[in-house]
Amino acid sequence: MTLTESGPSSTTSGSAGSSLDLGPAAALACRACGHRLALAAEFACPQCFGPLEVAYEFGRVTREQIERGPKSLWRYKDLLPVPSTVEAHPNMDPGFTRLVKADRLGAELGFRNLWVKDDTGNPTHSFKDRVVAVALAAARELGFRVLACPSTGNLANATAAAAARAGWDSVVLIPSSLERAKVIMTAVYETSLLAVDGTYDDVNRLATELAFEQEDWAFVNVNVRPYYAEGSKSLGYEIAEQLGWRIPAQTVVPVASGSQLTKIDKAYGELVSLGLVDGAEWRISGAQAAGCSPVSTAFAEGTDVVRPQKPDTIARSLAIGNPADGPYVLDAVRRTGGTVTDVTDDEVRDAMRLLARTEGIFAETAGGVTVANARKQLEAGTLDPDADTVLLITGDGLKTLDAIEGQVGPTATVPATSAAVREALGISS
Amino acid sequence: MTLTESGPSSTTSGSAGSSLDLGPAAALACRACGHRLALAAEFACPQCFGPLEVAYEFGRVTREQIERGPKSLWRYKDLLPVPSTVEAHPNMDPGFTRLVKADRLGAELGFRNLWVKDDTGNPTHSFKDRVVAVALAAARELGFRVLACPSTGNLANATAAAAARAGWDSVVLIPSSLERAKVIMTAVYETSLLAVDGTYDDVNRLATELAFEQEDWAFVNVNVRPYYAEGSKSLGYEIAEQLGWRIPAQTVVPVASGSQLTKIDKAYGELVSLGLVDGAEWRISGAQAAGCSPVSTAFAEGTDVVRPQKPDTIARSLAIGNPADGPYVLDAVRRTGGTVTDVTDDEVRDAMRLLARTEGIFAETAGGVTVANARKQLEAGTLDPDADTVLLITGDGLKTLDAIEGQVGPTATVPATSAAVREALGISS
Repeated sequence: MTLTESGPSSTTSGSAGSSLDLGPAAALACRACGHRLALAAEFACPQCFGPLEVAYEFGRVTREQIERGPKSLWRYKDLLPVPSTVEAHPNMDPGFTRLVKADRLGAELGFRNLWVKDDTGNPTHSFKDRVVAVALAAARELGFRVLACPSTGNLANATAAAAARAGWDSVVLIPSSLERAKVIMTAVYETSLLAVDGTYDDVNRLATELAFEQEDWAFVNVNVRPYYAEGSKSLGYEIAEQLGWRIPAQTVVPVASGSQLTKIDKAYGELVSLGLVDGAEWRISGAQAAGCSPVSTAFAEGTDVVRPQKPDTIARSLAIGNPADGPYVLDAVRRTGGTVTDVTDDEVRDAMRLLARTEGIFAETAGGVTVANARKQLEAGTLDPDADTVLLITGDGLKTLDAIEGQVGPTATVPATSAAVREALGISS
Repeated sequence: MTLTESGPSSTTSGSAGSSLDLGPAAALACRACGHRLALAAEFACPQCFGPLEVAYEFGRVTREQIERGPKSLWRYKDLLPVPSTVEAHPNMDPGFTRLVKADRLGAELGFRNLWVKDDTGNPTHSFKDRVVAVALAAARELGFRVLACPSTGNLANATAAAAARAGWDSVVLIPSSLERAKVIMTAVYETSLLAVDGTYDDVNRLATELAFEQEDWAFVNVNVRPYYAEGSKSLGYEIAEQLGWRIPAQTVVPVASGSQLTKIDKAYGELVSLGLVDGAEWRISGAQAAGCSPVSTAFAEGTDVVRPQKPDTIARSLAIGNPADGPYVLDAVRRTGGTVTDVTDDEVRDAMRLLARTEGIFAETAGGVTVANARKQLEAGTLDPDADTVLLITGDGLKTLDAIEGQVGPTATVPATSAAVREALGISS
């Protein structure tokens, strides 16, 4: 690869938004103090250092207009911070994944109206394709020339693949201790893959440092994070459209940084205010692993303060001990009457297997976290067994084979005779 | 699981087709002697032991009717041997995967109008979800109660997952030497997974024996093979629809049993005869690995006789040394002006990496076989660089990580400082 040595001119990435086409995005707004600034590659409020979020001025958007759109998240481009020409640039076209009616899983768990949003169907088989696609589109418009991220898994895959398809250079930072299989999944796209000696926290700090120093590098989850995070709204839009323009009464979402949960809630709210769904009430619940449960702990304690934890769980894609959006998750969950709970690693493995054997969906560990917490919340009476319920399955089991390595295997090993097969299966001949 | 001990009554699986609803399927016809028989669970001609194929009596089918259908292969249910109510039964709803305009790959290979049909987006990430879905639907109608297969990979995944989702029992036979990772991918669905001591050939023979003995077991690729194989037609329909109801001038298809290639050719022919596309000529070409090249060898020798080989290639999903549809592949390829070629394992690996770095698509080894042969055929002048060309990518690289394990890795390992990152990437600070 050829990485440029200097950044873009200050009239691009550093400039205010007047000449930018980011669709309905109108400004950046601080989630802490409300301060507004022009659209730019900024992620922290210049007044209070709070997190910035995209604010919109939506035009008229109709169901028909969306339904005529492409079979990807770009059907919602009028609701996302991307240029109106977004589809013209080669990209992964993720999204519009299956919403699966899950009657067999429902029967096992006790839900009578259950769906699974199966995001394993995305191009690199996780929801990260959505957020990276939006980050790439915004980054192009903001004048960046290199896509970058720190990651140990799904985000690394999605970033490297999206950059490859777009013809961009990319830089992916991983801890040098990462398992060989996960290294291969990202290295195959021939990104600049740097194995960094240190923990994932060290890698993250390095990414933030580089985001300031390398002006033309768009770290998707650092300096263009406000745009990136909005990509998760597409999950909420799709769920509602696929249910026939209806918001489900209950949605259970895994919580890592917490961003995905807050953006699905944001999407539901936008659909109501734009008149795209009939007035609806919804409950959003969060799902964590016991080994990384800062938000569920805060929820249980009734506090707004999310205390950092040192993660220790097989659900590595959720192992963020200091979740940036933790307080906002607590807000959304409490406002909508949901809860945040956590489950043990054994419960996660059992739930992965349950989902696979009832619905034929092999999810990564995060999917097990969602299913197991849905069961737990139902048993606790904080989810209603009769209400329409959607579970978010956001990544693929093929990426976390090690998690169930010791749990599953052949029923039996037999000689190559039909009699042996019958005997092994307890069938009389 | 509870496997029933006796088969269905002889009025179901053994019965003639008068009461069956298999949509437009009208009969089974022998591909060798033309003998016709009623729809049933038969796969060999009672007259000459030739292979049986589904024959149709199509009703009126329009583009509009298809376009109003679901976003899965069931949008073509009026062209497939499945009940008209097929979607009402829980199934994987595979198909309608992305057709990707591949300009960057095209530029590298020398094609000016190139597309990739990316079937990694299917639920278990290979085209096998298509054929299994059709096999399951037909098997249900034919009175079977257990789904089964011999397989070392994609078919095992697809069969076990489809049975799980449908609530059917399943039996999957694998060689006991299969790698642990591939065992996990299928075992997770809690199928009856039997590791058989012997080669894959031994496993196949055992499956055929069991198909005769266990009357309610539908071995998807044995006793319901005529229905199963038709599922590959959906690839041809989708390609044409996604190109705007147009058949591409050139289609390059990997050849294992050869069934997929012949069914795509069949689909194109049906689209023309039903008036769904404008009159078109097309060329179909086959792609094999040098380590398993019985069809390309026969093509090169100008013979109709496909001599069996003992496979030795990293492209294991294509490693069928005695391909059942080999002669029919030669027919279709010669009739349409195509060729069948083969490439080395090194060329396969290089092509996998080329596809990943240009289009962000991580294919299994079979995808590398397709891409490398397309390049070879273009260089030989047997493909036209200006004609619309579609390459079939039928399975996912996550399932064959071992194939490129030694080929890709981190660019560098560095300490956690931005100066070290810049130095590793050759960027002056």
